[in-house]
Amino acid sequence: MNPSTSVEDISMEHMKIDHASLERFASEALRTSGVDAEEAKIVARIMVWADLVGRFSQGVWRLPTYLRRFESGSMRSPCNPDFIKKSEIMYVVDGHNGFGQYVGHLAMLKAIEIAGKHGVGMVGVRNSNHFGPGAYYVEMAAKDSKLGLAFTNAGRRVAPHGGIDGVLGTNPIAFGAPMRNGKSILVDLSTSESSGSMLRKAAEKGQKIRKGVLVDKSGKSVEDPNNAPQAALLPFGGAKGFCLGLMVEILSGVITGSSISPEIPSAHLQMEKSAKVGHQFIAIDFSKLMTVENYWDRMEALIGTVKNSSKQAGVDEILIPGETRWRTDQKQRTEGIDLDAKTIESLTSLAKNLKLSVPW
Amino acid sequence: MNPSTSVEDISMEHMKIDHASLERFASEALRTSGVDAEEAKIVARIMVWADLVGRFSQGVWRLPTYLRRFESGSMRSPCNPDFIKKSEIMYVVDGHNGFGQYVGHLAMLKAIEIAGKHGVGMVGVRNSNHFGPGAYYVEMAAKDSKLGLAFTNAGRRVAPHGGIDGVLGTNPIAFGAPMRNGKSILVDLSTSESSGSMLRKAAEKGQKIRKGVLVDKSGKSVEDPNNAPQAALLPFGGAKGFCLGLMVEILSGVITGSSISPEIPSAHLQMEKSAKVGHQFIAIDFSKLMTVENYWDRMEALIGTVKNSSKQAGVDEILIPGETRWRTDQKQRTEGIDLDAKTIESLTSLAKNLKLSVPW
Repeated sequence: MNPSTSVEDISMEHMKIDHASLERFASEALRTSGVDAEEAKIVARIMVWADLVGRFSQGVWRLPTYLRRFESGSMRSPCNPDFIKKSEIMYVVDGHNGFGQYVGHLAMLKAIEIAGKHGVGMVGVRNSNHFGPGAYYVEMAAKDSKLGLAFTNAGRRVAPHGGIDGVLGTNPIAFGAPMRNGKSILVDLSTSESSGSMLRKAAEKGQKIRKGVLVDKSGKSVEDPNNAPQAALLPFGGAKGFCLGLMVEILSGVITGSSISPEIPSAHLQMEKSAKVGHQFIAIDFSKLMTVENYWDRMEALIGTVKNSSKQAGVDEILIPGETRWRTDQKQRTEGIDLDAKTIESLTSLAKNLKLSVPW
Repeated sequence: MNPSTSVEDISMEHMKIDHASLERFASEALRTSGVDAEEAKIVARIMVWADLVGRFSQGVWRLPTYLRRFESGSMRSPCNPDFIKKSEIMYVVDGHNGFGQYVGHLAMLKAIEIAGKHGVGMVGVRNSNHFGPGAYYVEMAAKDSKLGLAFTNAGRRVAPHGGIDGVLGTNPIAFGAPMRNGKSILVDLSTSESSGSMLRKAAEKGQKIRKGVLVDKSGKSVEDPNNAPQAALLPFGGAKGFCLGLMVEILSGVITGSSISPEIPSAHLQMEKSAKVGHQFIAIDFSKLMTVENYWDRMEALIGTVKNSSKQAGVDEILIPGETRWRTDQKQRTEGIDLDAKTIESLTSLAKNLKLSVPW
């Protein structure tokens, strides 16, 4: 942070912001608003992680929305989550409407701990909120030499295959697996053709939406992002994406006892309603199955074959899942996080209201 | 079976075959060829299940190929699988190059048994073969009031995103969840734009392949199914399908200690080579998390919302995963399995060689 900069002086352009300063700012904004200090620290860390790896749609851009929801009472802090033991290896965490990042982080920690003892840990979460980047939680597992899986449901946005009503959430699947070089395979994909946050970003930037992403009530493709809130997202890959979205709904919504997606209000349009989002976290300790050395060797053989395979014309390199994130992270840790003007503007305005100085 | 029909008299047309007779025939053909009687029974049951639900590409059509592989020594019976305990809840089964259906069936039974005790059971399989319809195994779990997940790798066919070499298998994901009405949600999808068996069926029927399914070494779309064996399949949904295929490879290949897909020979073109396919089975006992009544209610609310949502023009009904399979099963159990002429011809020829009568 630079306490000498007055918020009125800021020009509204893209800016490169030091990640540690941005994290401190986000944490302070949360604390100043009344969020528990420990929770604020975790939520800020995970938001800035998303920005660092280039997944800005899950980053600090969301801070003002979170705070409006917190102020309206639909998100709570401290949330004092309950850990309810269901078997030696299964827990359900009641998040008491806390920040999804905080509750999710605790739940994955528990899954990792259980996996270390028993080989597999499965921790469901109910009464939570938007948890941000699924890749963060599965990377937690991977950094601890486990495979990680994370699922979450979300507000109703996605039509079933053949349908036009948004009934499922974008219901992402995340998977992480460590490699010898310290990096992790990171899969994190919504089961819809686009995520809700990508659409909002497109609207902010005035970008057209390609065909086959959104449908209106008459079943026609919607290309104007400003009409996105009234339209339904289509599942990715047609029936297959719908099937996977329903699987995620059952794992994260049905069996956790949380809301199912059709019951979840929009985090952006219905501020005052508790979302009661459900998540599911699974950690798998592969060192119970083979030596870690053997695991590294096998991963190297697989990833080497994939990366060294022949490329389509115009493709420079076969990228494995997570590779773009590692590179963006490395670049932005050095050069700063490339925040867009809209985010800078909205955080500057937030800082003004909270009487905080901004790190730019 | 009708012992009075001589195989020479058979006309080569579509035929409706009683499923019990077809299953007896398949089992007898396996036994007569030297396959262990118990294994033959299970393999026949699972092949005919695939035909019954209308997934003919995983059905008795494959019997001659399996038998050629068995005769060449690359598939073995009896396989006497080893169950290697890795923790209270994790096992790896060494299938000793046995029939994938038999080994897969035993592994899912074990996962279900463990889940009943501990909440989650995870059973990997190494040194197995093509296991047929993933939906069968997850339905085993669902019929026992569990959620089921099944993954398998397969011979190298699928290019990474941006690539043109087939390095991954079609690596399907299967998921099953029971419902109050006795039916199960059944997800079973390859992570490629098409399965290998669908391509072979297309070649048999002389059907053109749509664009975006196959690429040749120059990166061009391949539409003639006869050129499919030299082409690579593309992942479904681009990068997302590739990410999921790699996840399946890690779960079923890397951590089971089996072959990884790039090492797996074609089951059709390299008969004499052991495939050493890997699978992964997970069963989840949701009754540890909530009452079964509560689970049924929650599933009904979810599925009801999906099915009753508005349809696109020209769509008669929103179908949930598994629904087409249940209906096809019900129809074919009554009317007989609608086997195509090619399959009838090939099984008739097999019967002749084995001196068996055919059930048509």
